[in-house]
Amino acid sequence: MNDVAKDDLEETLSRQLRNTRERLGAVLGRQGEALSPWVLRRTLRELRNVADPMVSDVEGGRRAAGVAGWYAQASPEQRRDCWLLMSEQFPPDPSAIEAARAAYEAARGTDEEARAEVRLRKAFASPRTRLLQRFAAFPEGVRFLVDLRAELLPHLKREKRLLALDAELEDLFSTWFDVGFLDLRRISWDSPASLIEKLIKYEAVHDVKGWADAKNRLDEDRRCYGFFHPRLPGEPLIFVEVALLRDMADSITPLLDEEGAADDLGKASTAIFYSISNTQTGLRGVSFGDSLIKRVVETLRQEFPQLKVFATLSPIPGLRGWLGKNAEAMLQATPARARQALARELDQGELDAPKLLKSLDGVAALDDKSPLRRWLLGTAARYLGSTLTPDGRPLDGVARFHLGNGARVERLNWLADPSAKGMKQSFGLMVNYLYDLKRLDKHRAMLAQGKVPLSGAIESLQD
Amino acid sequence: MNDVAKDDLEETLSRQLRNTRERLGAVLGRQGEALSPWVLRRTLRELRNVADPMVSDVEGGRRAAGVAGWYAQASPEQRRDCWLLMSEQFPPDPSAIEAARAAYEAARGTDEEARAEVRLRKAFASPRTRLLQRFAAFPEGVRFLVDLRAELLPHLKREKRLLALDAELEDLFSTWFDVGFLDLRRISWDSPASLIEKLIKYEAVHDVKGWADAKNRLDEDRRCYGFFHPRLPGEPLIFVEVALLRDMADSITPLLDEEGAADDLGKASTAIFYSISNTQTGLRGVSFGDSLIKRVVETLRQEFPQLKVFATLSPIPGLRGWLGKNAEAMLQATPARARQALARELDQGELDAPKLLKSLDGVAALDDKSPLRRWLLGTAARYLGSTLTPDGRPLDGVARFHLGNGARVERLNWLADPSAKGMKQSFGLMVNYLYDLKRLDKHRAMLAQGKVPLSGAIESLQD
Amino acid sequence: MNDVAKDDLEETLSRQLRNTRERLGAVLGRQGEALSPWVLRRTLRELRNVADPMVSDVEGGRRAAGVAGWYAQASPEQRRDCWLLMSEQFPPDPSAIEAARAAYEAARGTDEEARAEVRLRKAFASPRTRLLQRFAAFPEGVRFLVDLRAELLPHLKREKRLLALDAELEDLFSTWFDVGFLDLRRISWDSPASLIEKLIKYEAVHDVKGWADAKNRLDEDRRCYGFFHPRLPGEPLIFVEVALLRDMADSITPLLDEEGAADDLGKASTAIFYSISNTQTGLRGVSFGDSLIKRVVETLRQEFPQLKVFATLSPIPGLRGWLGKNAEAMLQATPARARQALARELDQGELDAPKLLKSLDGVAALDDKSPLRRWLLGTAARYLGSTLTPDGRPLDGVARFHLGNGARVERLNWLADPSAKGMKQSFGLMVNYLYDLKRLDKHRAMLAQGKVPLSGAIESLQD
Amino acid sequence: MNDVAKDDLEETLSRQLRNTRERLGAVLGRQGEALSPWVLRRTLRELRNVADPMVSDVEGGRRAAGVAGWYAQASPEQRRDCWLLMSEQFPPDPSAIEAARAAYEAARGTDEEARAEVRLRKAFASPRTRLLQRFAAFPEGVRFLVDLRAELLPHLKREKRLLALDAELEDLFSTWFDVGFLDLRRISWDSPASLIEKLIKYEAVHDVKGWADAKNRLDEDRRCYGFFHPRLPGEPLIFVEVALLRDMADSITPLLDEEGAADDLGKASTAIFYSISNTQTGLRGVSFGDSLIKRVVETLRQEFPQLKVFATLSPIPGLRGWLGKNAEAMLQATPARARQALARELDQGELDAPKLLKSLDGVAALDDKSPLRRWLLGTAARYLGSTLTPDGRPLDGVARFHLGNGARVERLNWLADPSAKGMKQSFGLMVNYLYDLKRLDKHRAMLAQGKVPLSGAIESLQD
Repeated sequence: MNDVAKDDLEETLSRQLRNTRERLGAVLGRQGEALSPWVLRRTLRELRNVADPMVSDVEGGRRAAGVAGWYAQASPEQRRDCWLLMSEQFPPDPSAIEAARAAYEAARGTDEEARAEVRLRKAFASPRTRLLQRFAAFPEGVRFLVDLRAELLPHLKREKRLLALDAELEDLFSTWFDVGFLDLRRISWDSPASLIEKLIKYEAVHDVKGWADAKNRLDEDRRCYGFFHPRLPGEPLIFVEVALLRDMADSITPLLDEEGAADDLGKASTAIFYSISNTQTGLRGVSFGDSLIKRVVETLRQEFPQLKVFATLSPIPGLRGWLGKNAEAMLQATPARARQALARELDQGELDAPKLLKSLDGVAALDDKSPLRRWLLGTAARYLGSTLTPDGRPLDGVARFHLGNGARVERLNWLADPSAKGMKQSFGLMVNYLYDLKRLDKHRAMLAQGKVPLSGAIESLQD
Repeated sequence: MNDVAKDDLEETLSRQLRNTRERLGAVLGRQGEALSPWVLRRTLRELRNVADPMVSDVEGGRRAAGVAGWYAQASPEQRRDCWLLMSEQFPPDPSAIEAARAAYEAARGTDEEARAEVRLRKAFASPRTRLLQRFAAFPEGVRFLVDLRAELLPHLKREKRLLALDAELEDLFSTWFDVGFLDLRRISWDSPASLIEKLIKYEAVHDVKGWADAKNRLDEDRRCYGFFHPRLPGEPLIFVEVALLRDMADSITPLLDEEGAADDLGKASTAIFYSISNTQTGLRGVSFGDSLIKRVVETLRQEFPQLKVFATLSPIPGLRGWLGKNAEAMLQATPARARQALARELDQGELDAPKLLKSLDGVAALDDKSPLRRWLLGTAARYLGSTLTPDGRPLDGVARFHLGNGARVERLNWLADPSAKGMKQSFGLMVNYLYDLKRLDKHRAMLAQGKVPLSGAIESLQD
Repeated sequence: MNDVAKDDLEETLSRQLRNTRERLGAVLGRQGEALSPWVLRRTLRELRNVADPMVSDVEGGRRAAGVAGWYAQASPEQRRDCWLLMSEQFPPDPSAIEAARAAYEAARGTDEEARAEVRLRKAFASPRTRLLQRFAAFPEGVRFLVDLRAELLPHLKREKRLLALDAELEDLFSTWFDVGFLDLRRISWDSPASLIEKLIKYEAVHDVKGWADAKNRLDEDRRCYGFFHPRLPGEPLIFVEVALLRDMADSITPLLDEEGAADDLGKASTAIFYSISNTQTGLRGVSFGDSLIKRVVETLRQEFPQLKVFATLSPIPGLRGWLGKNAEAMLQATPARARQALARELDQGELDAPKLLKSLDGVAALDDKSPLRRWLLGTAARYLGSTLTPDGRPLDGVARFHLGNGARVERLNWLADPSAKGMKQSFGLMVNYLYDLKRLDKHRAMLAQGKVPLSGAIESLQD
Repeated sequence: MNDVAKDDLEETLSRQLRNTRERLGAVLGRQGEALSPWVLRRTLRELRNVADPMVSDVEGGRRAAGVAGWYAQASPEQRRDCWLLMSEQFPPDPSAIEAARAAYEAARGTDEEARAEVRLRKAFASPRTRLLQRFAAFPEGVRFLVDLRAELLPHLKREKRLLALDAELEDLFSTWFDVGFLDLRRISWDSPASLIEKLIKYEAVHDVKGWADAKNRLDEDRRCYGFFHPRLPGEPLIFVEVALLRDMADSITPLLDEEGAADDLGKASTAIFYSISNTQTGLRGVSFGDSLIKRVVETLRQEFPQLKVFATLSPIPGLRGWLGKNAEAMLQATPARARQALARELDQGELDAPKLLKSLDGVAALDDKSPLRRWLLGTAARYLGSTLTPDGRPLDGVARFHLGNGARVERLNWLADPSAKGMKQSFGLMVNYLYDLKRLDKHRAMLAQGKVPLSGAIESLQD
């Protein structure tokens, strides 16, 4: 940046910052503390230098690397100020947008329409876009931005003014991390130890208890695949663990048993997806799961043409929470005869929701014929099969993901996850979602019309 | 897409297409010919299916691959119709933009500003964005879009309505092909034959005459580097050829001599960039050259710490054309004594521009002391050193590129390119642009103020 | 080596060399010329230093690299002296062998037999073995030894004393280049240009006419595979070119046609091996061909399960030479009626061999029914099917190779190679050898009993 | 093999086996037990089929793979029988050797000498060589032979008749695993988990306690290198662990401390080799260590030009054992004054060896000035610096290795390894061997003359 431009900047800085500073101070309540105007001004100047349109992208990238170096050792307060500056000081220019929009409006239906759209596009490009893109120019820059967003996400609720930065990052990431640009790679026991260490750390569904557990999950009769991006080398963005079995798994226990011998792959007819974990908080909103599952299915079918069934063995994380709030309603909806059987089993004259919920702690001991067991299964079937959010999506997070991909609810499995976590989330219940490759679109269409696709078994449980 | 949506679409299609078809017909003057309304409607429906927001990206990508398959065997007319549909039928929604913009305007300076910006961003995202991004989802999709743009570019001038599609593609490509996502790779005689075949085909500055010529340019005392993108494997987006020499090259002849033995690398002090070629017409507007040169300089300095000088040996493609229009003015500006010497040499009583230009055909025979040679050198120095476009950039395309990168005009070389092309472009003259790594920014700043950075030698030639 | 050992060596050198020198002089007839005793002594000392058992292999390798450096710039005479020294001055010790052998003899049948065998093995290991192995210790050492042998091979006939060195090199190479240690790699148009350049250079059967020809041979409907060794990187030891066709090829012409479009691979049922070339003269006696063909067959069957027939289209390099010597005998063996027809066709009263041979120059013009054509086919069938060397192997070099691998003579093809070379070798005839995977062993066994395996068609041609 | 040959074999088998079987029975004392003559005969026949010279190497390799398959599930007795057959039934032919040797003797000094040597070489090649080489032809064959030898080695002492097989395997391995054919690769935390698992298993000097320990040893300020062979992929044949430090390490404790932070590499001047482990018992006698250390030194010098000192921190595994036998003699050799001081410290009127040895158990508590500490250091210096085997090599195994490589004994370190193993082997003492790159040859020469190279400090300790 030449000197003239610098002086010019200097003049406008004071004015602009006066407003920002006041609000920064008011909101963060840290007046007189970390909010040194001098630091703020210097930071803003550095950020403007990065975004300077007069400077080449190479030079802009060099400057961005400098800012990242400063950020690495900055205090939490300084970082938050930096986010606010990035969010507030680099907005699109509303008057330019208005002019371009009006011109576009006027040009509609004429030969000038396309040209007017191009100008509107240009008017809309905020200086923030250039600011952020220049961080992609140095080797660690993408990593920097993803980590920055991971760090700022928890503050979004309290500090609405960060929303602009967050949304622009999500937009950028959606383009950069388009699944078309990702590599699908198998993760095996021959993968780098540093990568398997990350697997152990990131696994979000069934904790990996150590290296022997990790080795078991990468055994011959297992497959693990992850998506990788060239700019985050060695970092799986998402990964899925698969067991190749003779039948659809009805319990997570044998799958996590480190001692269990690998099964004969030649006899496997079923691929069970028993764990999917996203790893990068900073990529929230960029979705990889659907593509991952479908590419893994393709890959598995090529390696094992004999595979017939593709399904998950999934937790039902929201069941207990939901039941806590809806037990009474569920009880009301229970037919009289079933309620009487329940009351007898629980040895209660008058059934009420709190008592019922409490008795569910002893669920592990119930046998096949227990009315409580039946009631719980039926209730779970209703939870998964009939409960939708106001905008028509499945209530349970995991259900939302798999049903959204076109799977259907296939089978509920009793005591399938007897771990403390499993009991706490869903009384030990787990569910298989079936990926019937020929019906994925049909299932999606059903769901779009508010009908959850279910197997016959689940349907009859609901009754 | 479900059937209801399809019927709905069907209804609106007729209405929308009526207008489009008329204009298509009017503009292209092909009424009654390729413009079968039935084909148009089917194509539009397919494109809408690709962009369908109700469908997963995986499914959208599958549909995009289908469209690409149709396109591959479509007629030129069908392709042009397809472009128009993509450009015209997927615009942003102006009323949504207007509402979002007004809300943004109102929210300025309040805590809601950021959220309003987010909404504005969403309102602006055209369905075309989704349409195009879904082509990136299948393996050959990026290749498809780049080729499609290369094909449509020549039509832009005549058909303004394609501008919207073109601009959106350029925008997408700018993000996808951000230099941060490119790999710098050395191309050598050990590179795949299929890659070197492309080098031969794409070389735009000094034609490669065959495999022996290619081998010479990849010899031990040469380096060749290209940028590659993971989605266009085996395709150099741009490449540069470098000779490592003891002195700054003053002629292209020895560099292109296939018989010349490789020089001793240990003694090289100078890296000469003697050819830079972009290869993908479809990526026009996405600039790689500046980054390429700077990353190559870094790479060379690591491998050969003894290198001191980084410079080009470049053509002056616009010289003859410019002189054709400005010879008279240049003559006027020539001091009387020099004009007399010229007149004597050319054996002309009265010097006039046409005669002068004609005599330049014999320029190859002029010796050091020839007044005409001096006059031509001075004129070339002025062309490179003082002639700017109205928006302040160097007139000559190659000069614009290197000076824009921060280089300076270093030396003019007489008869440096005696090939027919060289004589035709610039009377055999070539120029060295010097990359003085410590002054790149200073030179850029000078240029931004309208002053072309020149060496002392060039400055004195101008006088 | 310490100084004491050096002095000691010095003393014995004079004595040993006196004898060697005389003989070197006598044999090579270069007395007083290149045979400077001083150089000889120095060379011998350097070689002994390399082989010094007191020195570590690392140090020995370092010294070997030094000798290789000297050798690179040595004169042809100095190199020949060096070979003689390596062959003559590092023999096994006969008295040690005799002692160990006698001990082994005595120990036969006792518990000491094995230990005695171990000692015999040790006694036999010549210092030359260590000398040569130390050349393998530096990166370019294996390359050095292979090239050295290639250089010395032409001298073997005249200079029997090099046989020991030659045989020990062959032995070493047989172990180092065991096919188990070779990589089979596909060579395609995506292989390094430097490798394809070697293909062009090494192709020994049908000359590659340039890069376009090479590209044609690496086209989609072709395959090319080579064996590579880790110590000779980028160097194919042997390679085979394969065409994938619908029928067994009966002419080389379409296979070498650069303009011919690639065939649809899905319809190919036949793999034709139409060229096999060894590349390293220095590896003579180490055989790769059998393994190469069989591993390529395996590889092709995996990629193209629909392939049914594996055969060659091969030259018959020895046919004309053999016929030149055996025409008379062949004529004698021709039944009277066929001879009369021949005589009529050639318009000769009395058929004699020279005239017959001469008339074969016009063979290209003969139609199906020509008696001469029939006679030539029958004669070729007899040449391939009945002529064996005294030790029972096929006379023709190419036949020897393929029949030795277990193939059979399948079909003779008229005018299959109309090139000058093809006409000169075999009057344009080519032959298919069929690799019937289930009968390779049976065919080998037949051949071992003196019977060449033939198809019915060839058998009837012989009659 | 054809049927005639098979019948022929059948006849000779009975005769040959009669002798072998009796001896097999007699030696192994398992008469009537596992020694089924039928199994023996079948095994011998299979082995002969593998070695059949009439069969191609490809076919031989196929047969060898079959034998390996049988072997994998054979009983220990069957395996031992198999070894005996391989060792006894495939010897060289003594009469052929004798004839060739006599001819060679006669040819000495004539022009036929070299040819005679070639014949002698051929006569010596045992059928066993071909038998073993054919195991190298199938992918897992080298692994098979290395494992087979590892299994047979413990039986060698008791069963001398296996020596021939063992020696031939060692010979073959020496050629196949020539260091020239090995890859030096860095092992880091980014290496495959399966490889690091092997590191943990094979580490022979300082046990790796788990994955965190392994990670510490592969930290940024460490380096680990191994030799790999293309035929044993993923298997380090030997590996060395190196710490990069500011000073020569005097204790193993900080090097094994998992919590210790990585040091600043820029300040490291010293590379400490603190662990070297061979991994393949089956490759006994094939030495890799010298080459490994020297190639690692080269590699480190390239990456860290500032490194000045290359040394080990090594155990003294034989010290306690040796002292147990030589304490009395050492005491005798101790000067009177030192003995008196010792006696005072140990509170003993009359010093005797047993008491002295016993008091060494409390060695950890001794301070700088303790006479016992001084005595022990002096004794250790003598052990390392003056004790040689009858054939003039250092007594201590580790000393033998490093001194044989040209290192010198540099420094003794008190309480450098306080682990139970360290105390048991050498009372906690460890030693640095210094690799002074300019003096490796000089040190080797000294050692060859019976003088161990020592630093001044060690020399003065000896006094």
